[in-house]
Amino acid sequence: VTKRSVSPFDGLYALPGFPLTLLTVGQNVLTVVSFHYYSHKPPSVMVGIRPDNYSFKLLQEKRVFAVNLLRRDMVEVARQCGTITGRTQDKFARVGLTRAPATKIDGVLVAECPVSLECSVVHEVDFPSTHHWFVGKIEAAHVDDAYLREHALLYWMSEFRGVGELLLKDTSL
Amino acid sequence: VTKRSVSPFDGLYALPGFPLTLLTVGQNVLTVVSFHYYSHKPPSVMVGIRPDNYSFKLLQEKRVFAVNLLRRDMVEVARQCGTITGRTQDKFARVGLTRAPATKIDGVLVAECPVSLECSVVHEVDFPSTHHWFVGKIEAAHVDDAYLREHALLYWMSEFRGVGELLLKDTSL
Repeated sequence: VTKRSVSPFDGLYALPGFPLTLLTVGQNVLTVVSFHYYSHKPPSVMVGIRPDNYSFKLLQEKRVFAVNLLRRDMVEVARQCGTITGRTQDKFARVGLTRAPATKIDGVLVAECPVSLECSVVHEVDFPSTHHWFVGKIEAAHVDDAYLREHALLYWMSEFRGVGELLLKDTSL
Repeated sequence: VTKRSVSPFDGLYALPGFPLTLLTVGQNVLTVVSFHYYSHKPPSVMVGIRPDNYSFKLLQEKRVFAVNLLRRDMVEVARQCGTITGRTQDKFARVGLTRAPATKIDGVLVAECPVSLECSVVHEVDFPSTHHWFVGKIEAAHVDDAYLREHALLYWMSEFRGVGELLLKDTSL
């Protein structure tokens, strides 16, 4: 393999894709790809939000959020929830999504999403970034029995992708 | 969609997959799925390492690392670099990987990987976890011209997967 040197941004651009999610904060919903797990014990995740986003202030107030996994057939929902603001309108109504009650946090879940994780903020990463990262402990989780990993949606740098086929199942790693 | 409540861990388990990487620290290499981007500006990433891992102490000393993306045909390399230790043996030799010189950091890259990002540690996330997370600014990036996102390898909870097909290319998000 012969590699060519590129800019740091083009290095970031080369990443393949990450799970695309709908983040719910209070009554609002927004599309977020800046999401990863943080720890196995206690099970926790982290989400990065741009400080100019309406949900950023909401989250700093409420200190709870839910991560809802998007399905691969929800590309248009993802686009809309990522491009219109919840500041002046109800995005759920506008996009045709349904609020489902959360069980452990003060907030809502997206009924149409196959997986929802209710989280409480336990830490904020204190280092300047385009995104402000919040670590959230999973307080409750809800999964559609019919959901498979193949149903999920990936995204990175303008490309929406499916999750590829299983190559190997191996528990040694 | 009717969801069933599951444990927080089973909620984490339901995530689809994340890019699987080889992390190089000093002369050592290890398989890491706890990797995400951190910020667009400056382009930076974060990696999580278990404190009992040999590379953890190395990284705290050296303060530089490289992330090397695995290809989907490198599942066996990923397994081996994730299950044997570099404490007592040279993993590159053992697994049949080739060291390539880094250009901006004191360390090596994996010649066989299609994308390598050289990073310097700019922050450590100070919140207890099974993984200790390091934020790294990308100092140099190297990409194989023949690399496509479809070539990459995903992993989560014992499943190695490919990256799925392009569903939509759209710059609005």
